[in-house]
Amino acid sequence: MDIAMAEARAAAGRGEVPVGAALSGPGGVLLARAGNRVEEWRDPSAHAEMQVMRAAVHQLGGERLGGCVLYVTLEPCPMCAAAATHFRLGRIVFGAYDPKGGGVEHGPRVFSHPRCLHRPEVVGGVREREAGALLRDFFRHLRA
Amino acid sequence: MDIAMAEARAAAGRGEVPVGAALSGPGGVLLARAGNRVEEWRDPSAHAEMQVMRAAVHQLGGERLGGCVLYVTLEPCPMCAAAATHFRLGRIVFGAYDPKGGGVEHGPRVFSHPRCLHRPEVVGGVREREAGALLRDFFRHLRA
Repeated sequence: MDIAMAEARAAAGRGEVPVGAALSGPGGVLLARAGNRVEEWRDPSAHAEMQVMRAAVHQLGGERLGGCVLYVTLEPCPMCAAAATHFRLGRIVFGAYDPKGGGVEHGPRVFSHPRCLHRPEVVGGVREREAGALLRDFFRHLRA
Repeated sequence: MDIAMAEARAAAGRGEVPVGAALSGPGGVLLARAGNRVEEWRDPSAHAEMQVMRAAVHQLGGERLGGCVLYVTLEPCPMCAAAATHFRLGRIVFGAYDPKGGGVEHGPRVFSHPRCLHRPEVVGGVREREAGALLRDFFRHLRA
């Protein structure tokens, strides 16, 4: 989660909404790390989570992410949560809850549907205060 | 939809699940076309819809897809539906309904939640029989 936090801070420094992610493989080895690049890449799907899941599958030569853990500073949105199903991700550990844009514990609750083909384990609220403060500081600066 | 169907058939020829998409911009001009590339790219997120939305934003120099129409042969999954929200897509026209993996009219019904920030217009079941036959033929051959 330290790496995800560092990626979130780096994203803020680039003028991006500060969300960061890290993905660890079997044995805890770091496979990928990324921050939000929506503005820089002009790609509304360039969320940190999408980037690390894609990079990790590439690292693993096409293998799915069953033994892997995604660490991310914010509750994943419905797009990233549903992608985690396609990537067969083992576990998600996220920081702040996102009542507005989240898709795991809020909104469409992507993993809660009976037809959902694969559900990662989910642990939410890890270092929640710190992760939330990053976002609040960013939006406070934008408005100032 | 003709182009989406052609892309779906081409995907089947590459051994991919046959789903194809096309994206038209204001005035009906074709901005992007793609078929599923999950196997070829070893990227579980390389759905036809994700590819054409990304390519179209690129074509438009970073502009979102408000005046655009996504044609796709199958009901989008929750990942692609939620991505359409991020891309601010104007309209989705899809072929076959997907009770197992769909995320628009089935499962998490991504656009039906009050917190959903942007809802494209949706027209489903267009040339449904033809689009469904493509998928059925593909899976029949796989099992044969």
